[in-house]
Amino acid sequence: MSLSARNQLPGIVEDVKLGTIMALVTVRVGDNIVDSVITRASAEGLGLKKGDAVRAVVKSTEVMIQKD
Amino acid sequence: MSLSARNQLPGIVEDVKLGTIMALVTVRVGDNIVDSVITRASAEGLGLKKGDAVRAVVKSTEVMIQKD
Amino acid sequence: MSLSARNQLPGIVEDVKLGTIMALVTVRVGDNIVDSVITRASAEGLGLKKGDAVRAVVKSTEVMIQKD
Amino acid sequence: MSLSARNQLPGIVEDVKLGTIMALVTVRVGDNIVDSVITRASAEGLGLKKGDAVRAVVKSTEVMIQKD
Amino acid sequence: MSLSARNQLPGIVEDVKLGTIMALVTVRVGDNIVDSVITRASAEGLGLKKGDAVRAVVKSTEVMIQKD
Amino acid sequence: MSLSARNQLPGIVEDVKLGTIMALVTVRVGDNIVDSVITRASAEGLGLKKGDAVRAVVKSTEVMIQKD
Repeated sequence: MSLSARNQLPGIVEDVKLGTIMALVTVRVGDNIVDSVITRASAEGLGLKKGDAVRAVVKSTEVMIQKD
Repeated sequence: MSLSARNQLPGIVEDVKLGTIMALVTVRVGDNIVDSVITRASAEGLGLKKGDAVRAVVKSTEVMIQKD
Repeated sequence: MSLSARNQLPGIVEDVKLGTIMALVTVRVGDNIVDSVITRASAEGLGLKKGDAVRAVVKSTEVMIQKD
Repeated sequence: MSLSARNQLPGIVEDVKLGTIMALVTVRVGDNIVDSVITRASAEGLGLKKGDAVRAVVKSTEVMIQKD
Repeated sequence: MSLSARNQLPGIVEDVKLGTIMALVTVRVGDNIVDSVITRASAEGLGLKKGDAVRAVVKSTEVMIQKD
Repeated sequence: MSLSARNQLPGIVEDVKLGTIMALVTVRVGDNIVDSVITRASAEGLGLKKGDAVRAVVKSTEVMIQKD
Protein backbone atom coordinates (compact mmCIF):
# COMPACT_ATOMS: atom_id res chain seq x y z
CA MET A 1 0.00 0.00 0.00
CA SER A 2 1.52 3.29 -1.09
CA LEU A 3 0.46 5.23 2.00
CA SER A 4 2.89 7.61 3.67
CA ALA A 5 2.26 6.10 7.13
CA ARG A 6 5.52 4.32 7.85
CA ASN A 7 4.18 1.81 10.36
CA GLN A 8 2.03 -0.92 8.84
CA LEU A 9 2.26 -3.91 11.11
CA PRO A 10 0.81 -7.22 9.87
CA GLY A 11 -1.37 -9.14 12.30
CA ILE A 12 -4.52 -11.11 12.97
CA VAL A 13 -7.73 -9.68 14.45
CA GLU A 14 -8.38 -11.23 17.86
CA ASP A 15 -11.50 -9.32 18.83
CA VAL A 16 -13.89 -6.62 17.63
CA LYS A 17 -16.09 -4.84 20.14
CA LEU A 18 -18.72 -2.43 18.86
CA GLY A 19 -20.07 0.68 20.61
CA THR A 20 -22.60 3.15 19.27
CA ILE A 21 -20.03 5.35 17.51
CA MET A 22 -16.66 3.68 18.05
CA ALA A 23 -15.24 0.16 17.88
CA LEU A 24 -12.28 -1.42 19.62
CA VAL A 25 -10.28 -3.77 17.39
CA THR A 26 -7.65 -5.98 19.02
CA VAL A 27 -4.91 -7.26 16.73
CA ARG A 28 -2.15 -9.74 17.44
CA VAL A 29 1.14 -8.48 15.92
CA GLY A 30 3.93 -10.97 16.55
CA ASP A 31 4.25 -11.30 20.31
CA ASN A 32 2.32 -8.10 20.97
CA ILE A 33 -1.30 -7.06 21.15
CA VAL A 34 -2.19 -3.81 19.39
CA ASP A 35 -5.46 -2.07 20.24
CA SER A 36 -7.09 0.16 17.66
CA VAL A 37 -10.07 2.44 18.12
CA ILE A 38 -11.85 3.24 14.86
CA THR A 39 -15.42 4.18 14.03
CA ARG A 40 -18.05 1.48 14.18
CA ALA A 41 -18.91 2.48 10.63
CA SER A 42 -15.38 1.63 9.47
CA ALA A 43 -15.28 -1.64 11.41
CA GLU A 44 -18.55 -2.67 9.80
CA GLY A 45 -17.56 -1.31 6.39
CA LEU A 46 -14.42 -3.48 6.42
CA GLY A 47 -16.42 -6.40 7.81
CA LEU A 48 -13.76 -6.89 10.51
CA LYS A 49 -14.00 -10.13 12.45
CA LYS A 50 -11.82 -12.45 14.51
CA GLY A 51 -9.20 -14.17 12.35
CA ASP A 52 -8.93 -11.50 9.65
CA ALA A 53 -5.46 -10.73 8.32
CA VAL A 54 -4.97 -6.98 8.71
CA ARG A 55 -2.34 -4.32 9.16
CA ALA A 56 -2.24 -1.96 12.12
CA VAL A 57 -1.29 1.37 10.56
CA VAL A 58 0.24 4.22 12.56
CA LYS A 59 1.64 7.56 11.39
CA SER A 60 5.14 7.97 12.79
CA THR A 61 4.30 11.32 14.39
CA GLU A 62 1.89 9.39 16.66
CA VAL A 63 4.57 7.11 18.12
CA MET A 64 6.22 8.08 21.41
CA ILE A 65 9.32 6.53 22.95
CA GLN A 66 9.48 5.27 26.53
CA LYS A 67 12.96 4.47 27.77
CA ASP A 68 12.85 1.68 30.30
CA MET B 1 4.21 2.16 33.40
CA SER B 2 0.67 3.12 34.42
CA LEU B 3 -0.09 5.15 31.30
CA SER B 4 -3.48 4.87 29.62
CA ALA B 5 -1.91 4.33 26.17
CA ARG B 6 -2.70 0.69 25.46
CA ASN B 7 0.08 0.01 22.99
CA GLN B 8 3.55 -0.13 24.53
CA LEU B 9 5.67 -2.29 22.26
CA PRO B 10 9.11 -3.33 23.54
CA GLY B 11 12.00 -2.97 21.12
CA ILE B 12 15.55 -1.89 20.46
CA VAL B 13 16.58 1.43 18.96
CA GLU B 14 18.20 0.88 15.57
CA ASP B 15 18.81 4.48 14.57
CA VAL B 16 18.34 8.06 15.72
CA LYS B 17 18.44 10.87 13.18
CA LEU B 18 18.34 14.46 14.42
CA GLY B 19 16.90 17.49 12.65
CA THR B 20 16.67 21.04 13.94
CA ILE B 21 13.31 20.55 15.68
CA MET B 22 12.37 16.91 15.17
CA ALA B 23 14.09 13.53 15.39
CA LEU B 24 13.36 10.24 13.68
CA VAL B 25 13.81 7.22 15.94
CA THR B 26 13.77 3.77 14.35
CA VAL B 27 12.93 0.86 16.66
CA ARG B 28 12.98 -2.85 16.00
CA VAL B 29 9.88 -4.49 17.50
CA GLY B 30 9.93 -8.24 16.91
CA ASP B 31 9.99 -8.74 13.15
CA ASN B 32 8.84 -5.19 12.46
CA ILE B 33 10.44 -1.76 12.26
CA VAL B 34 8.56 1.05 13.98
CA ASP B 35 9.40 4.67 13.10
CA SER B 36 8.76 7.38 15.65
CA VAL B 37 9.00 11.13 15.17
CA ILE B 38 9.53 13.03 18.39
CA THR B 39 11.16 16.35 19.20
CA ARG B 40 14.92 16.57 19.06
CA ALA B 41 14.73 17.91 22.61
CA SER B 42 13.04 14.68 23.78
CA ALA B 43 15.45 12.45 21.88
CA GLU B 44 18.37 14.26 23.48
CA GLY B 45 16.68 14.44 26.88
CA LEU B 46 16.24 10.65 26.89
CA GLY B 47 19.77 10.21 25.52
CA LEU B 48 18.41 7.86 22.83
CA LYS B 49 21.04 5.90 20.92
CA LYS B 50 21.35 2.70 18.90
CA GLY B 51 20.93 -0.37 21.08
CA ASP B 52 18.73 1.20 23.77
CA ALA B 53 15.87 -0.90 25.09
CA VAL B 54 12.71 1.19 24.68
CA ARG B 55 8.99 0.95 24.21
CA ALA B 56 7.16 2.38 21.23
CA VAL B 57 4.01 3.87 22.76
CA VAL B 58 0.86 4.56 20.73
CA LYS B 59 -2.58 5.70 21.90
CA SER B 60 -5.17 3.31 20.50
CA THR B 61 -7.15 6.11 18.86
CA GLU B 62 -4.11 6.64 16.59
CA VAL B 63 -4.13 3.11 15.16
CA MET B 64 -5.92 2.48 11.87
CA ILE B 65 -6.79 -0.90 10.37
CA GLN B 66 -5.92 -1.87 6.81
CA LYS B 67 -7.62 -5.03 5.58
CA ASP B 68 -5.42 -6.82 3.07
CA MET C 1 8.47 9.07 33.80
CA SER C 2 10.97 8.74 30.96
CA LEU C 3 8.43 9.11 28.18
CA SER C 4 9.20 11.29 25.17
CA ALA C 5 5.86 13.13 25.43
CA ARG C 6 6.91 16.58 26.60
CA ASN C 7 3.63 17.62 28.19
CA GLN C 8 2.82 15.82 31.43
CA LEU C 9 0.56 18.08 33.42
CA PRO C 10 -0.16 17.14 37.04
CA GLY C 11 -3.77 17.31 38.16
CA ILE C 12 -6.67 15.75 40.02
CA VAL C 13 -9.43 13.68 38.41
CA GLU C 14 -12.75 15.48 38.73
CA ASP C 15 -14.97 13.07 36.85
CA VAL C 16 -14.92 9.79 34.93
CA LYS C 17 -17.76 9.00 32.56
CA LEU C 18 -17.86 5.55 30.94
CA GLY C 19 -19.30 4.64 27.54
CA THR C 20 -19.28 1.24 25.87
CA ILE C 21 -15.87 1.69 24.23
CA MET C 22 -14.58 5.09 25.35
CA ALA C 23 -14.38 7.04 28.59
CA LEU C 24 -14.22 10.77 29.25
CA VAL C 25 -11.87 11.72 32.06
CA THR C 26 -11.98 15.28 33.37
CA VAL C 27 -8.86 16.51 35.15
CA ARG C 28 -8.25 19.75 37.03
CA VAL C 29 -4.81 21.12 36.11
CA GLY C 30 -4.13 24.35 38.02
CA ASP C 31 -6.86 26.78 37.01
CA ASN C 32 -7.79 24.77 33.93
CA ILE C 33 -9.93 21.75 33.16
CA VAL C 34 -8.40 19.19 30.80
CA ASP C 35 -10.66 16.63 29.14
CA SER C 36 -9.20 13.31 28.06
CA VAL C 37 -10.86 10.60 25.99
CA ILE C 38 -9.32 7.18 26.50
CA THR C 39 -10.67 3.66 26.18
CA ARG C 40 -13.04 2.41 28.85
CA ALA C 41 -10.65 -0.52 29.22
CA SER C 42 -7.80 1.84 30.14
CA ALA C 43 -9.95 3.88 32.53
CA GLU C 44 -10.99 0.68 34.29
CA GLY C 45 -7.50 -0.80 34.11
CA LEU C 46 -6.08 2.26 35.89
CA GLY C 47 -9.03 2.28 38.29
CA LEU C 48 -9.53 5.98 37.62
CA LYS C 49 -11.89 7.76 40.01
CA LYS C 50 -12.62 11.25 41.30
CA GLY C 51 -9.79 12.56 43.46
CA ASP C 52 -6.97 10.54 41.87
CA ALA C 53 -3.67 12.31 41.35
CA VAL C 54 -2.79 11.89 37.67
CA ARG C 55 -0.91 13.49 34.83
CA ALA C 56 -2.53 14.58 31.59
CA VAL C 57 0.01 13.56 28.95
CA VAL C 58 0.09 15.11 25.47
CA LYS C 59 2.61 14.64 22.65
CA SER C 60 3.80 18.07 21.52
CA THR C 61 2.84 17.40 17.89
CA GLU C 62 -0.79 17.31 19.10
CA VAL C 63 -0.77 20.84 20.52
CA MET C 64 -2.01 23.71 18.35
CA ILE C 65 -1.62 27.41 19.04
CA GLN C 66 -4.49 29.88 18.96
CA LYS C 67 -3.48 33.51 19.00
CA ASP C 68 -6.08 35.63 20.74
CA MET D 1 -13.64 30.39 19.96
CA SER D 2 -16.36 27.95 18.91
CA LEU D 3 -14.02 25.07 18.13
CA SER D 4 -14.89 21.55 19.23
CA ALA D 5 -11.45 21.00 20.82
CA ARG D 6 -12.26 20.97 24.53
CA ASN D 7 -8.83 21.95 25.80
CA GLN D 8 -7.89 25.56 25.15
CA LEU D 9 -5.38 26.55 27.79
CA PRO D 10 -4.46 30.23 28.07
CA GLY D 11 -0.77 31.04 28.35
CA ILE D 12 2.17 33.17 27.31
CA VAL D 13 4.70 32.24 24.63
CA GLU D 14 8.12 31.77 26.21
CA ASP D 15 10.08 30.71 23.14
CA VAL D 16 9.73 30.02 19.43
CA LYS D 17 12.36 27.94 17.69
CA LEU D 18 12.19 27.57 13.90
CA GLY D 19 13.33 24.62 11.79
CA THR D 20 13.03 24.22 8.04
CA ILE D 21 9.54 22.70 8.14
CA MET D 22 8.50 22.66 11.80
CA ALA D 23 8.63 25.03 14.75
CA LEU D 24 8.69 24.41 18.48
CA VAL D 25 6.59 26.83 20.49
CA THR D 26 6.96 26.84 24.27
CA VAL D 27 4.05 28.26 26.24
CA ARG D 28 3.73 28.93 29.95
CA VAL D 29 0.30 27.78 31.17
CA GLY D 30 -0.08 28.51 34.88
CA ASP D 31 2.67 26.60 36.66
CA ASN D 32 3.30 24.34 33.65
CA ILE D 33 5.22 24.54 30.41
CA VAL D 34 3.42 23.27 27.31
CA ASP D 35 5.42 22.46 24.19
CA SER D 36 3.74 22.66 20.82
CA VAL D 37 5.11 21.56 17.46
CA ILE D 38 3.44 23.29 14.52
CA THR D 39 4.60 24.11 11.01
CA ARG D 40 7.07 26.93 10.59
CA ALA D 41 4.57 28.38 8.11
CA SER D 42 1.93 28.59 10.84
CA ALA D 43 4.33 30.02 13.41
CA GLU D 44 5.33 32.72 10.94
CA GLY D 45 1.76 33.22 9.72
CA LEU D 46 0.62 33.93 13.30
CA GLY D 47 3.73 36.03 13.92
CA LEU D 48 4.38 34.12 17.14
CA LYS D 49 6.98 35.64 19.45
CA LYS D 50 7.96 35.62 23.10
CA GLY D 51 5.37 37.32 25.26
CA ASP D 52 2.35 36.67 23.02
CA ALA D 53 -0.90 35.74 24.75
CA VAL D 54 -2.05 32.48 23.17
CA ARG D 55 -4.05 29.35 23.84
CA ALA D 56 -2.60 25.87 23.66
CA VAL D 57 -5.35 23.87 21.99
CA VAL D 58 -5.61 20.08 22.27
CA LYS D 59 -8.34 17.71 21.06
CA SER D 60 -9.43 15.54 23.99
CA THR D 61 -8.77 12.32 22.07
CA GLU D 62 -5.06 13.30 22.13
CA VAL D 63 -4.81 13.44 25.93
CA MET D 64 -3.58 10.35 27.80
CA ILE D 65 -3.75 9.76 31.54
CA GLN D 66 -0.76 8.71 33.63
CA LYS D 67 -1.62 7.55 37.14
CA ASP D 68 1.21 8.32 39.51
CA MET E 1 -9.77 32.09 12.99
CA SER E 2 -6.15 32.57 14.05
CA LEU E 3 -5.51 28.92 14.89
CA SER E 4 -2.27 27.27 13.82
CA ALA E 5 -4.11 24.30 12.26
CA ARG E 6 -3.55 24.83 8.56
CA ASN E 7 -6.52 22.88 7.27
CA GLN E 8 -9.86 24.55 7.89
CA LEU E 9 -12.25 23.27 5.27
CA PRO E 10 -15.63 24.98 4.94
CA GLY E 11 -18.66 22.72 4.68
CA ILE E 12 -22.20 21.92 5.71
CA VAL E 13 -23.18 19.42 8.40
CA GLU E 14 -25.04 16.50 6.85
CA ASP E 15 -25.54 14.37 9.93
CA VAL E 16 -24.82 14.22 13.66
CA LYS E 17 -24.98 10.88 15.44
CA LEU E 18 -24.60 10.82 19.23
CA GLY E 19 -23.13 8.04 21.37
CA THR E 20 -22.65 8.05 25.13
CA ILE E 21 -19.21 9.69 25.01
CA MET E 22 -18.48 10.40 21.35
CA ALA E 23 -20.34 11.84 18.38
CA LEU E 24 -19.89 11.31 14.67
CA VAL E 25 -20.34 14.48 12.62
CA THR E 26 -20.58 14.17 8.85
CA VAL E 27 -19.72 17.28 6.85
CA ARG E 28 -20.01 17.93 3.13
CA VAL E 29 -16.89 19.74 1.89
CA GLY E 30 -17.16 20.48 -1.82
CA ASP E 31 -17.52 17.11 -3.56
CA ASN E 32 -16.24 15.20 -0.54
CA ILE E 33 -17.67 13.91 2.72
CA VAL E 34 -15.53 14.48 5.81
CA ASP E 35 -16.25 12.47 8.94
CA SER E 36 -15.31 13.91 12.32
CA VAL E 37 -15.41 12.19 15.69
CA ILE E 38 -15.63 14.61 18.60
CA THR E 39 -17.03 14.31 22.10
CA ARG E 40 -20.77 14.29 22.52
CA ALA E 41 -20.25 17.15 24.96
CA SER E 42 -18.65 19.27 22.21
CA ALA E 43 -21.31 18.36 19.65
CA GLU E 44 -24.00 19.40 22.09
CA GLY E 45 -22.06 22.43 23.28
CA LEU E 46 -21.82 23.71 19.70
CA GLY E 47 -25.46 22.75 19.07
CA LEU E 48 -24.40 20.96 15.88
CA LYS E 49 -27.26 19.98 13.56
CA LYS E 50 -27.87 19.17 9.92
CA GLY E 51 -27.44 22.25 7.72
CA ASP E 52 -24.99 24.12 9.96
CA ALA E 53 -22.14 25.95 8.23
CA VAL E 54 -18.94 24.68 9.84
CA ARG E 55 -15.26 24.15 9.19
CA ALA E 56 -13.58 20.77 9.40
CA VAL E 57 -10.26 21.56 11.08
CA VAL E 58 -7.23 19.26 10.84
CA LYS E 59 -3.67 19.79 12.05
CA SER E 60 -1.29 19.17 9.15
CA THR E 61 0.71 16.57 11.12
CA GLU E 62 -2.47 14.41 11.05
CA VAL E 63 -2.71 14.26 7.25
CA MET E 64 -1.18 11.31 5.42
CA ILE E 65 -0.62 11.00 1.68
CA GLN E 66 -1.77 8.03 -0.37
CA LYS E 67 -0.33 7.87 -3.87
CA ASP E 68 -2.77 6.25 -6.25
CA MET F 1 -8.02 1.27 -0.52
CA SER F 2 -9.48 -0.77 2.32
CA LEU F 3 -8.10 1.41 5.12
CA SER F 4 -10.29 2.29 8.10
CA ALA F 5 -9.49 6.01 7.80
CA ARG F 6 -12.76 7.47 6.61
CA ASN F 7 -11.39 10.61 4.99
CA GLN F 8 -9.50 10.00 1.78
CA LEU F 9 -9.71 13.18 -0.25
CA PRO F 10 -8.52 13.05 -3.87
CA GLY F 11 -6.27 15.89 -5.01
CA ILE F 12 -3.18 17.03 -6.85
CA VAL F 13 0.17 17.79 -5.25
CA GLU F 14 0.99 21.48 -5.60
CA ASP F 15 4.26 21.57 -3.71
CA VAL F 16 6.69 19.42 -1.75
CA LYS F 17 9.14 21.07 0.62
CA LEU F 18 11.81 18.92 2.27
CA GLY F 19 13.42 19.44 5.67
CA THR F 20 15.97 17.22 7.38
CA ILE F 21 13.40 14.95 9.03
CA MET F 22 9.99 16.18 7.88
CA ALA F 23 8.39 17.28 4.62
CA LEU F 24 5.48 19.60 3.92
CA VAL F 25 3.22 18.41 1.12
CA THR F 26 0.61 20.81 -0.24
CA VAL F 27 -2.34 19.23 -2.02
CA ARG F 28 -5.18 20.87 -3.92
CA VAL F 29 -8.48 19.19 -2.99
CA GLY F 30 -11.35 20.75 -4.94
CA ASP F 31 -11.41 24.43 -3.96
CA ASN F 32 -9.29 23.86 -0.87
CA ILE F 33 -5.62 23.50 -0.07
CA VAL F 34 -4.70 20.70 2.32
CA ASP F 35 -1.29 20.74 4.00
CA SER F 36 0.25 17.48 5.11
CA VAL F 37 3.38 16.98 7.19
CA ILE F 38 4.97 13.57 6.73
CA THR F 39 8.50 12.30 7.08
CA ARG F 40 11.01 13.23 4.43
CA ALA F 41 11.67 9.50 4.09
CA SER F 42 8.02 8.89 3.15
CA ALA F 43 7.89 11.81 0.74
CA GLU F 44 10.99 10.50 -1.00
CA GLY F 45 9.82 6.88 -0.79
CA LEU F 46 6.60 7.79 -2.58
CA GLY F 47 8.52 10.01 -5.01
CA LEU F 48 6.05 12.83 -4.38
CA LYS F 49 6.26 15.75 -6.79
CA LYS F 50 4.12 18.57 -8.11
CA GLY F 51 1.28 17.26 -10.27
CA ASP F 52 0.95 13.84 -8.67
CA ALA F 53 -2.56 12.50 -8.13
CA VAL F 54 -2.83 11.60 -4.46
CA ARG F 55 -5.28 11.25 -1.61
CA ALA F 56 -5.04 13.24 1.60
CA VAL F 57 -5.96 10.67 4.26
CA VAL F 58 -7.20 11.66 7.72
CA LYS F 59 -8.51 9.50 10.56
CA SER F 60 -11.88 10.85 11.66
CA THR F 61 -10.77 11.18 15.29
CA GLU F 62 -8.31 13.85 14.06
CA VAL F 63 -10.99 16.13 12.61
CA MET F 64 -12.34 18.97 14.74
CA ILE F 65 -15.40 21.09 14.02
CA GLN F 66 -15.38 24.89 14.06
CA LYS F 67 -18.80 26.49 13.99
CA ASP F 68 -18.66 29.83 12.22
